[in-house]
Amino acid sequence: MAVRVAVAGASGYAGGEALRLLLAHPEAEIGALTGNSNAGLRLGALQPHLLPLAGRVLAETTPEALANHDVVLLALPHGQSAAVAERLGPDVLVIDMGADFRLKDPADWKRFYGSPHAGTWPYGLPELPGARAALEGSKRIAVPGCYPTAASLALAPAYAASLTENEAVIVAASGTSGAGKALKPHLLGSEVMGSMSPYGVGGGHRHTPEMVQNLSAAAGEPVTVSFTPTLAPMPRGILATCSAKARPGVTAEAVRAAYEKAYADEPFVHLLAEGQWPATASVYGSNAVQIQVAYDPAAHRVIAVSAIDNLTKGTAGGAVQSMNIALGLDETTGLTTIGVAP
Amino acid sequence: MAVRVAVAGASGYAGGEALRLLLAHPEAEIGALTGNSNAGLRLGALQPHLLPLAGRVLAETTPEALANHDVVLLALPHGQSAAVAERLGPDVLVIDMGADFRLKDPADWKRFYGSPHAGTWPYGLPELPGARAALEGSKRIAVPGCYPTAASLALAPAYAASLTENEAVIVAASGTSGAGKALKPHLLGSEVMGSMSPYGVGGGHRHTPEMVQNLSAAAGEPVTVSFTPTLAPMPRGILATCSAKARPGVTAEAVRAAYEKAYADEPFVHLLAEGQWPATASVYGSNAVQIQVAYDPAAHRVIAVSAIDNLTKGTAGGAVQSMNIALGLDETTGLTTIGVAP
Amino acid sequence: MAVRVAVAGASGYAGGEALRLLLAHPEAEIGALTGNSNAGLRLGALQPHLLPLAGRVLAETTPEALANHDVVLLALPHGQSAAVAERLGPDVLVIDMGADFRLKDPADWKRFYGSPHAGTWPYGLPELPGARAALEGSKRIAVPGCYPTAASLALAPAYAASLTENEAVIVAASGTSGAGKALKPHLLGSEVMGSMSPYGVGGGHRHTPEMVQNLSAAAGEPVTVSFTPTLAPMPRGILATCSAKARPGVTAEAVRAAYEKAYADEPFVHLLAEGQWPATASVYGSNAVQIQVAYDPAAHRVIAVSAIDNLTKGTAGGAVQSMNIALGLDETTGLTTIGVAP
Amino acid sequence: MAVRVAVAGASGYAGGEALRLLLAHPEAEIGALTGNSNAGLRLGALQPHLLPLAGRVLAETTPEALANHDVVLLALPHGQSAAVAERLGPDVLVIDMGADFRLKDPADWKRFYGSPHAGTWPYGLPELPGARAALEGSKRIAVPGCYPTAASLALAPAYAASLTENEAVIVAASGTSGAGKALKPHLLGSEVMGSMSPYGVGGGHRHTPEMVQNLSAAAGEPVTVSFTPTLAPMPRGILATCSAKARPGVTAEAVRAAYEKAYADEPFVHLLAEGQWPATASVYGSNAVQIQVAYDPAAHRVIAVSAIDNLTKGTAGGAVQSMNIALGLDETTGLTTIGVAP
Repeated sequence: MAVRVAVAGASGYAGGEALRLLLAHPEAEIGALTGNSNAGLRLGALQPHLLPLAGRVLAETTPEALANHDVVLLALPHGQSAAVAERLGPDVLVIDMGADFRLKDPADWKRFYGSPHAGTWPYGLPELPGARAALEGSKRIAVPGCYPTAASLALAPAYAASLTENEAVIVAASGTSGAGKALKPHLLGSEVMGSMSPYGVGGGHRHTPEMVQNLSAAAGEPVTVSFTPTLAPMPRGILATCSAKARPGVTAEAVRAAYEKAYADEPFVHLLAEGQWPATASVYGSNAVQIQVAYDPAAHRVIAVSAIDNLTKGTAGGAVQSMNIALGLDETTGLTTIGVAP
Repeated sequence: MAVRVAVAGASGYAGGEALRLLLAHPEAEIGALTGNSNAGLRLGALQPHLLPLAGRVLAETTPEALANHDVVLLALPHGQSAAVAERLGPDVLVIDMGADFRLKDPADWKRFYGSPHAGTWPYGLPELPGARAALEGSKRIAVPGCYPTAASLALAPAYAASLTENEAVIVAASGTSGAGKALKPHLLGSEVMGSMSPYGVGGGHRHTPEMVQNLSAAAGEPVTVSFTPTLAPMPRGILATCSAKARPGVTAEAVRAAYEKAYADEPFVHLLAEGQWPATASVYGSNAVQIQVAYDPAAHRVIAVSAIDNLTKGTAGGAVQSMNIALGLDETTGLTTIGVAP
Repeated sequence: MAVRVAVAGASGYAGGEALRLLLAHPEAEIGALTGNSNAGLRLGALQPHLLPLAGRVLAETTPEALANHDVVLLALPHGQSAAVAERLGPDVLVIDMGADFRLKDPADWKRFYGSPHAGTWPYGLPELPGARAALEGSKRIAVPGCYPTAASLALAPAYAASLTENEAVIVAASGTSGAGKALKPHLLGSEVMGSMSPYGVGGGHRHTPEMVQNLSAAAGEPVTVSFTPTLAPMPRGILATCSAKARPGVTAEAVRAAYEKAYADEPFVHLLAEGQWPATASVYGSNAVQIQVAYDPAAHRVIAVSAIDNLTKGTAGGAVQSMNIALGLDETTGLTTIGVAP
Repeated sequence: MAVRVAVAGASGYAGGEALRLLLAHPEAEIGALTGNSNAGLRLGALQPHLLPLAGRVLAETTPEALANHDVVLLALPHGQSAAVAERLGPDVLVIDMGADFRLKDPADWKRFYGSPHAGTWPYGLPELPGARAALEGSKRIAVPGCYPTAASLALAPAYAASLTENEAVIVAASGTSGAGKALKPHLLGSEVMGSMSPYGVGGGHRHTPEMVQNLSAAAGEPVTVSFTPTLAPMPRGILATCSAKARPGVTAEAVRAAYEKAYADEPFVHLLAEGQWPATASVYGSNAVQIQVAYDPAAHRVIAVSAIDNLTKGTAGGAVQSMNIALGLDETTGLTTIGVAP
């Protein structure tokens, strides 16, 4: 089987990571590469780490360029995916690495993005209850946000097992690639090296409603989320420190058991040995999620910490994993749980 | 006036930072420099950034070496300060940058440090209610821990104004100098660059009871603290993201007003303009505390974020500030609110 | 004495560093702050580390705004300084932190900058032979480039003492602030962290003719320079590794002696103890130059390595040092040799 | 075919990288893992990025533990490989990632290492003239040092084509993993972040004679090397800036042509498009060598710059590449030219 895959938005970080993974995917054949502002440029100048594609030239993102592929991966600005997907037809597997089809509630979309809601596609986080089945055979997939991937996997087992009250507090640190290749002063190397800073504090980050959606589904009742993202001086990685008040009678053993059960058969989620805590360096370039959980008896809270690579499991790896499921391939094809460290 | 100051533990990061500040202090004269394992070595080899002291040689930390000074700054391992202080006599200003005299409750000390409690000295965080008065004329000062400095200043106004419920959640990122110069594998540059990781999760960090002590005092009732420290890939800086559930009826305006009032006259605490958030780079090498606060109506929480330099305001700068107060000098002598950035 | 100083280009890195130093300068009073694209903005939003100036608002860079100051520091794009200086009149001390007045040979200027040559001002590197005298009382000063500062001080003693052949090889690593605040993709944090890369290889960098000018002057005959700059994953600092073939009969002792003699009385140049090598961290935020030199008998070369802070000694510190000399103040006023480390 | 591979020294950086690559090698089966000081510990605690091996426990490095493998990779301290290799017998492929068997001249070994010379094995840098043939079918391989890999590949084509004089100047920046996991103060994260510093200046670094050996072989006459290594604030990567005086009549076109010819058929060496320069980030985790070369007419020098990952192509990737050749496998098996970036 040779799956022909196009990547729209191939000059950015998400698109580049998708290409890095697809180059190592035994069933994938890389087709069209598009990118509007960089159309006409050599990929070698834009993504110098992808040597085998150095001579490829970017096309414009048009329906014609993306036609005749089995899979189209979209790494486009918000609001552009629906129009592209429509032109591709229902038989093409369209995987959106942007936000357009993640949220179920149109009011959430409107409040956080301000534009009309495009709809909802099957959600590409197979480790959530029920999610994997919805991806099998699907022709449309919405890849989760990077922060929701890290935070939802950290807390879902606690909510699914009714161990925690319905108010979650999430503080996450992200590497700068999470902000993309946009030329903004605060993303300059001179500004970010040696510095930690928060942004979108107080509920303003667009990934908040996605976390609420995931954790509420796991809990079976509404969960509120206080989410504070911070920018960390590293190119990749998310460390999500997540906690919620424990329900009465909860014990450390019950917490551990719930997480062991939840992730026993997951190929990419790794509950660490007791006493060991996640580090983003350990999942650098890998599709693994490293998780550890603790119960604090004094504060009476469950604290779960997860580490992912925001570009791999948090974006392009999640996309490839979901693609594998949708196509009926082994879910782990072309993906690794081995990080590049130190 | 010339204040003669000795530094015990001059080869470590806290001692080095104390010397950096004392070199710029117009009233201080640097006296004995001691350090046990490095006794006999040139400071130029140990602290190559302190050029004016490059030729000084470290003595052993003995009562004789530390005698005949107006002030003795201690940067010693836990449990060693009491014996040294006793030998120095009651007329010498002894400032302990270690933990020995911070906690009031001997049971807390025993639980977190395991050794007998040495006592409690006036607490060197003058911005806390009542703290400044206790430092005036004092001959003994306990410098706060770096995390408690950042977190207490972030949340104390909310508790003092009864804006928040008595359960605080604190997630803080620290630069690696907070862990000192100890040779541990996880502190190697190869391990920390590009990596974020938590430690002491679930209430185990020794700074937790100090935060509980400070916030409970501000609130006038017991406050529980869920504290998760994380190690960040930067040499200096702490970013503390702190939150607590808002009490009924609290508004964003009331929160802002409480913080404006609390810090209006503080020379080192700077409440940022609305919409601007702290970054550790902005306080690099400075004694400033940058704070911002928000109210999240959806999660119904108050979120306060502070940035400090862990070695300056978090350790040696706090020590010098408290020294100034104890000696009756202007509190800001020899200290700056200007960071070295970018 | 109160010297009133204006800074044109106050929103950039050079301008911000000048303000950081002037705030600590006991004789300086900060006057007008200008910046074209950022005119009207609060400095607190642009330079958040300069808390005492947070409320100041940038004006446009006009002759009117800069009038009525004793000193005007220019941090402007290439080619703009001459017109501004002309309008300020001959009695104002104008210090250009840009390149316009550094080169003596109009042909050099034309070849590397492409525009007409504006002229040559006294060169603000007082440690070079003869340079200090030319600065005394001067009303015009050209601040050297950051790389030429590091490289010229590293090799000038060898050339002045006729120890080396007239072909120098210089490879220097610079922190990213050396490239300024310009929004270029390769300066994004995601790109620079974890990466070293060269640029301007093969003689193309504009600082090359300035090095040739300085080293030729020291040698008293033409010296060629092979200069390769590299971008390093740090915000500040230059490490210049410089070498040249030793002349026949040169010994390690002769080399050491030449450097000891050259810098014995210089307040900012520190020849390290034998066996110790410079590190950029040791001069972070300081005006010091740390230098070490070795003789390699197998390769028969003299290797000199220097470390500076590119923004301090390499730009704004050099400007303040020269300003002090021009005004007849103590040369070290407001400057330090103490770095912020670790 | 299943090749059973043991790794001695599996807890260090070289051993860990070897395991990372072997896990992705379709023909390799990972056998014994040994490590003296860490014997008895779980690999999950020592190499947390290698999830598939998390449960493996390290054995002591004994002949018994290493017996019965097709290949034994040695990542041992200097001087220990000969004794181990002898016990393994002549039929086992022994690949030494240490220095013991790299140098041909016993006097060089004695001068730089101080111990008796163990001998010389076929040299695992197949891209050097004649090297590949010597590796085919060999049962003993000496993996080159990381700096010599980068520098020799950068300059060998110039020397092989007689374009340059026989005095080379090499300044290289290395990530901290090149110094291994040894607990030394200058390798602490607090010391290395934000800092560049040289070491072993003046010909003292042990990789110098290896460069001399390689470049002299390429030139067919003795070449002297001035080598200055610098420590850079990044975990991985080497950027080697190498130059030598051009011979009379050399042109930029001749230089380019020589490099194009030298590396036209090499699967891992990539001569970049003209105008593009190497960056270590582009080869992060990959076995690629990115090279660019320029001719500086003013300084009359050829400047070649190479970027490698010191742990991959510079150590373990070079070992696997050579293993593939020795075993008759496709040379690229299990290796990639795709870096993990940004």
